[in-house]
Amino acid sequence: MYIDQTLQHYLDDLASSQPTPGGGSASALSGAMGAALASMVCRLTLDKEAYAGVQQEIDELLKRTENLRLRFQQLMQEDIEAFGRLSASYKLPHETSEERAARSGAVQEQLVGATLVPLEVAELAAELIQRCQRIAEIGNAMVLSDVTNGAILASGAGQGAALMVRINLRAMRNDVLVAELGERLSRALTTISEGVQRVSSIVGGRA
Amino acid sequence: MYIDQTLQHYLDDLASSQPTPGGGSASALSGAMGAALASMVCRLTLDKEAYAGVQQEIDELLKRTENLRLRFQQLMQEDIEAFGRLSASYKLPHETSEERAARSGAVQEQLVGATLVPLEVAELAAELIQRCQRIAEIGNAMVLSDVTNGAILASGAGQGAALMVRINLRAMRNDVLVAELGERLSRALTTISEGVQRVSSIVGGRA
Repeated sequence: MYIDQTLQHYLDDLASSQPTPGGGSASALSGAMGAALASMVCRLTLDKEAYAGVQQEIDELLKRTENLRLRFQQLMQEDIEAFGRLSASYKLPHETSEERAARSGAVQEQLVGATLVPLEVAELAAELIQRCQRIAEIGNAMVLSDVTNGAILASGAGQGAALMVRINLRAMRNDVLVAELGERLSRALTTISEGVQRVSSIVGGRA
Repeated sequence: MYIDQTLQHYLDDLASSQPTPGGGSASALSGAMGAALASMVCRLTLDKEAYAGVQQEIDELLKRTENLRLRFQQLMQEDIEAFGRLSASYKLPHETSEERAARSGAVQEQLVGATLVPLEVAELAAELIQRCQRIAEIGNAMVLSDVTNGAILASGAGQGAALMVRINLRAMRNDVLVAELGERLSRALTTISEGVQRVSSIVGGRA
């Protein structure tokens, strides 16, 4: 698991010509960094007298941003595994018509998994940015640039993951599923772009 | 050095209430991931017959994206150190007028270092996005989404680093330097926002 290896090892493998890790895992890591910065701002708001009135809400926000961080960390690895299974299915034999049918079925099956992982990254990035909005409203005013930075990194995560979702949707044959997943992606991206603007303007207003 | 420690350790420290690592180092890591993805696309273009005509240029682009990655990796650590020195200068004694003058001088000196590090992150992110544009034009068409993803991560790096630059510029008293560094930041951000759009549209045109 890359999470238990050094940053240098992860970056070297990301830069290499091997198929994984790729952009999907890098997007998930960007989301994990964004969640970590949101958590940091929550922690720097806890037990501060000036923020006594919001302690309970900040505590709940911190639990959620830490859960988001954990999930992004897991998705880094899940993306690598889902992409690996998809790549393997493309390499199945396809000489006979039976082989071609079996390969096509396997590819279609693995495409779903390889799409759901980056879609979850995009949806969690949208949720994280909504949490960042609330933290920007009530969090410690001394460290609000970090919550803006968290939202920016979450936005990068969502936009990067969206590229992977769209590529896989283009290869998928189940039109109903393609429409449904495409709709979920659009909703996440709208939340992300509106949310980042809102975080910036809230933080600007409190500076 | 965080680069030699596990991803888990870095993310846990980023999420903690300790002053470093903070948003500046996370931005530099986002830049390093962007450079890594650009390098991956270059490596997947080398020694491919279909791209015989661009081998020398891709080889030069790869050298540059790998240098950018190395520099982003170093800036992760340099940001932590520069921010540490700035925080220490703010904690100097300021009871007497001599102490206040000494503290103010130290803060102003450390503000310059703490600004130049994220400014370099923003400027290198701008350069990386320009390299991504060229890679998008001539690189392996099968993996172009990774170069778009690299540009997106570089954009997050530049925008995040810009927050840190602006905060420090507000506290700096040398107006000439503030104007000069502010101008450099604006140029970098313009290159970044125009460049990401261009990478997307080049990749879209080749899909």
